[in-house]
Amino acid sequence: MALIVQKYGGTSVGSIERIKAVADRVARCKRAGDRMVVVVSAMAGETNRLFKLASELCETPDPRETDVLVATGEQVSAALLAIRLQSLGFPAISFLADQLRIATDSNHGRARIKSIEPARVIEELHAGKVVVVAGYQGVDARGDITTLGRGASDLTAVALAAALKADACEIYTDVDGVYTADPNLCPHARKLKRISYDEMLEMAGLGAKVLQLRSVELARRYNVPLVVRSSFNESEGTWVGQEDQSMENVLVSGVALDLNQSKVTITGVEDRPGLAARIFGPIAQAGIVVDMIIQNASADGRTDLTFTVNRDDLRRTLDLVRRVASEIGASGVRHEEQVAKVSIVGVGMRTHAGVAARMFEVLAGERINIEMIATSEIKVSVVVNAKYGELAMRALHDAFVDNDAIQFAGETV
Amino acid sequence: MALIVQKYGGTSVGSIERIKAVADRVARCKRAGDRMVVVVSAMAGETNRLFKLASELCETPDPRETDVLVATGEQVSAALLAIRLQSLGFPAISFLADQLRIATDSNHGRARIKSIEPARVIEELHAGKVVVVAGYQGVDARGDITTLGRGASDLTAVALAAALKADACEIYTDVDGVYTADPNLCPHARKLKRISYDEMLEMAGLGAKVLQLRSVELARRYNVPLVVRSSFNESEGTWVGQEDQSMENVLVSGVALDLNQSKVTITGVEDRPGLAARIFGPIAQAGIVVDMIIQNASADGRTDLTFTVNRDDLRRTLDLVRRVASEIGASGVRHEEQVAKVSIVGVGMRTHAGVAARMFEVLAGERINIEMIATSEIKVSVVVNAKYGELAMRALHDAFVDNDAIQFAGETV
Repeated sequence: MALIVQKYGGTSVGSIERIKAVADRVARCKRAGDRMVVVVSAMAGETNRLFKLASELCETPDPRETDVLVATGEQVSAALLAIRLQSLGFPAISFLADQLRIATDSNHGRARIKSIEPARVIEELHAGKVVVVAGYQGVDARGDITTLGRGASDLTAVALAAALKADACEIYTDVDGVYTADPNLCPHARKLKRISYDEMLEMAGLGAKVLQLRSVELARRYNVPLVVRSSFNESEGTWVGQEDQSMENVLVSGVALDLNQSKVTITGVEDRPGLAARIFGPIAQAGIVVDMIIQNASADGRTDLTFTVNRDDLRRTLDLVRRVASEIGASGVRHEEQVAKVSIVGVGMRTHAGVAARMFEVLAGERINIEMIATSEIKVSVVVNAKYGELAMRALHDAFVDNDAIQFAGETV
Repeated sequence: MALIVQKYGGTSVGSIERIKAVADRVARCKRAGDRMVVVVSAMAGETNRLFKLASELCETPDPRETDVLVATGEQVSAALLAIRLQSLGFPAISFLADQLRIATDSNHGRARIKSIEPARVIEELHAGKVVVVAGYQGVDARGDITTLGRGASDLTAVALAAALKADACEIYTDVDGVYTADPNLCPHARKLKRISYDEMLEMAGLGAKVLQLRSVELARRYNVPLVVRSSFNESEGTWVGQEDQSMENVLVSGVALDLNQSKVTITGVEDRPGLAARIFGPIAQAGIVVDMIIQNASADGRTDLTFTVNRDDLRRTLDLVRRVASEIGASGVRHEEQVAKVSIVGVGMRTHAGVAARMFEVLAGERINIEMIATSEIKVSVVVNAKYGELAMRALHDAFVDNDAIQFAGETV
């Protein structure tokens, strides 16, 4: 008797008919003997509707109140699914974050889970019930509602799966699984059967929207087996788990494109210790995630510092950076609101050299200028002009994924 | 510096424009120096929308889950109003039932408040904030969301006003105040300036929908001065408070019509001690409120027992009563799904006799047959055929309210 945590995204519960379909699917699993915990997102469109109401009342609505507002979306879905399961004859009970003590910090809109006390879940599972949980939300030390950030119902599901030591965490969405590239942009993209946590993490962090980044981190840390699959069909989906030998035979598992990045450059920064901390300290304190950072080699004692942030954070970042720039006597701040980050990801890179060089060759062949480069053990990312993003993605997919990656083995950069 | 609790009903917060108008009104009071606690209902139509979603998934949705579902309506309103107040420059903070420990029993859909811990409200008022509270909801001992019944945001407001020892509790709605009869049905109805708790209680209990019954009870018990007024204009509204001398000069303050009653008769009940308890015990346990009860004088050792319940409870009542009736050997159960209860109410009745007799005369003059009669110190109610309800109301209003009531003083029944 397996313990399964399932998570259904917004489109999966986007209408009364869809909720019925989800209930049918949960019922099938329950009938097969599994113990079921089901995490739900808000019905598709609902979160945006609520954000819009707030924005009609205030240009920059208070984050605490916005959390109170938007958390209702998941609450509605959870209650409706429980009601439907009961009407099918399956005892079910819904819970909100405060009832499971999904404790977070007070960083409204992007709170981090600190702990979960799933005692009531366990109690109700023992009583034979399906436990339905409102995703996306937590509760802080004061008892205020927090939300965990866009897409964070995944995080709720993985955290619960970890806390409950579940046998699997199944993420149901409107796509069949994890693809080698975004199938809407890349006609040759194909579904992966398996992918490692590390690869998925890079993919998620690079703008592949199938899974939320922090949920993959958490799954890796607690070794929660993830499955990404569609709630609209019976396709098997993609398993995300620990790396195994066979994965290393594949050089590049996927190509990711992120068009939601902005680039900020501080020019003429004096090249002395402590200035980077002066610049990035306030940004970090504001809860803004900086992605790539590049500092050019200094020639005349002055250097340029370039970094990327999420476009949503650009305005706040510029406010902070302009203030610091004048304080530290930098010569100026420039920015590019939309840039494209294109990345290739694969655990095979660990054992195969020459991948980055080949990537630059491919882009050069398309006459695409590279503005920034960042690498990790299993990833190479480049920032290019936004208008070349899709072209770069397709070219890299053709070169690395469509070809047999093994041919690059042994090459050197 | 007065402490005012205001409550805004569904139509008062029924749209973004209405929420802005409410925020403006709250802001004016705050600017005038009052400390403000604002209780809000769900936006008009929202609660029904949510109930409808549930009913599309299950014929008889689970009450616990239904509460989780519908409580979101008030949560949305509370957050939106707080957001709007902040955008006007007034610090505001919203709270849900669990944050104020609005503790109730677990009678989902009609829970009763047991206690309130308004410490956080007081703290935020001291900090100069407007406190916005989601009405209609509570939390039970397990931490589950409960709701207090239709119209119960009034109750939240009065309970908070009592707990905070507020100077007044203002109930904003879409009517100008309390009328001598429903103005939609009775063209001569006029607004009352003042009415006593007892009168208001009888009116509320008799189907005058301006104030929720339990909220008036609570206001009376804790001597909370109530004001009923419109959020759509600046009209002064009706004060509801302790009885004073001047009120006794008015014989009948209002005429109420309740078309939401059903009549149940158990025929051929053996006339021996304990049977009434056998009958009404299970009904009470099911949380069903029985209104009028009449037992005819027994002739042959058998009697008929007639009572009224809310129409919403008729089906459940009949299920219970039919079972008991066969157990106790009664000869049958009859029911009338819709009857009209027409009542006249006034504290002046305490000191003036003959009111009931005059009431029966008026109805006889309209050839309306009286099916049941019930009286209290300040009220006479009759049940009549539903189709005569409005006629009876108008006739009684003409006879008692439009005339100078004093003329009946000294008459006897």
